[in-house]
Amino acid sequence: MPYVNIRVAGTLTKEQKEKISKGVTDVICREAGKPPEAVLIFIDEVERDNIAKAGTLLSNG
Amino acid sequence: MPYVNIRVAGTLTKEQKEKISKGVTDVICREAGKPPEAVLIFIDEVERDNIAKAGTLLSNG
Amino acid sequence: MPYVNIRVAGTLTKEQKEKISKGVTDVICREAGKPPEAVLIFIDEVERDNIAKAGTLLSNG
Amino acid sequence: MPYVNIRVAGTLTKEQKEKISKGVTDVICREAGKPPEAVLIFIDEVERDNIAKAGTLLSNG
Amino acid sequence: MPYVNIRVAGTLTKEQKEKISKGVTDVICREAGKPPEAVLIFIDEVERDNIAKAGTLLSNG
Amino acid sequence: MPYVNIRVAGTLTKEQKEKISKGVTDVICREAGKPPEAVLIFIDEVERDNIAKAGTLLSNG
Repeated sequence: MPYVNIRVAGTLTKEQKEKISKGVTDVICREAGKPPEAVLIFIDEVERDNIAKAGTLLSNG
Repeated sequence: MPYVNIRVAGTLTKEQKEKISKGVTDVICREAGKPPEAVLIFIDEVERDNIAKAGTLLSNG
Repeated sequence: MPYVNIRVAGTLTKEQKEKISKGVTDVICREAGKPPEAVLIFIDEVERDNIAKAGTLLSNG
Repeated sequence: MPYVNIRVAGTLTKEQKEKISKGVTDVICREAGKPPEAVLIFIDEVERDNIAKAGTLLSNG
Repeated sequence: MPYVNIRVAGTLTKEQKEKISKGVTDVICREAGKPPEAVLIFIDEVERDNIAKAGTLLSNG
Repeated sequence: MPYVNIRVAGTLTKEQKEKISKGVTDVICREAGKPPEAVLIFIDEVERDNIAKAGTLLSNG
């Protein structure tokens, strides 16, 4: 029952989400021996104002 | 200090959130012996474009 | 595809985990209209040294 | 590679996010001996309808 | 700054973790246009007693 | 009701956890205007085999 949470800065197109979901599911199934239908992925698109690296918001970086 | 994160596809009405919060808190308090005021619940309503099962977005499923 | 993460201080018996999982799943299915087989729950048992409230570790509280 | 997720009720101003990110990064670097550029922070601003304490939504509390 | 959290039932070998980390990073970089060094992955290996599907612990399923 | 999850590679001493919890709580209370007793922190100490940056496990980096 793999659960995957992917958090990215900014937005993704629907096509990007489709390809990421398909690709990540394939990797996990192939390497961990899990059936595809067990893989659940949640993608969070997070504003650049709400992510900081080294103490600086990405929107200021 | 139980922390609960519930992630659902799509949206919930306020009444659904009230009932889920009340019900989940009751279960945890009854079964784990925790006081209600210690239970903190966050509900995330996630778009169906951002959740995938078996490598397919729910919005395409 | 509800995903639920429950984080508690200390440990639970297997029977407690069974009852919490069953009870939380029932609440979400009943109130949000989701089928039981869609509900995925992860329980994290966290040491009291690793949880703080009001800036104080639970193990010191 | 510390990862920090801060979830707050309601919204924060950009200045609040800047100060929280800077302050939390400073604390972790000073106390855990991590370099600032390794610290990644995600701030989630969550509606008061979607958080419950003691089984009651914050928006009803 | 993609952050990825992968939660699996049971344990993985170090080789499996290496291949999953490499594969998932490749997918996200290729599809989302992110540089590899920005991708941070945390893998959680969770006991089957602590995961439930359809209200039943995996260890009982 | 701020909830904070801090995930670090390796382990921390109890004293480090105390100082991080106190320091992070102080920052959030001061900058976001929250009362200390509302701040709940969970610290996850994660093995270096289970974290990857740029597709490489920290334990191999």
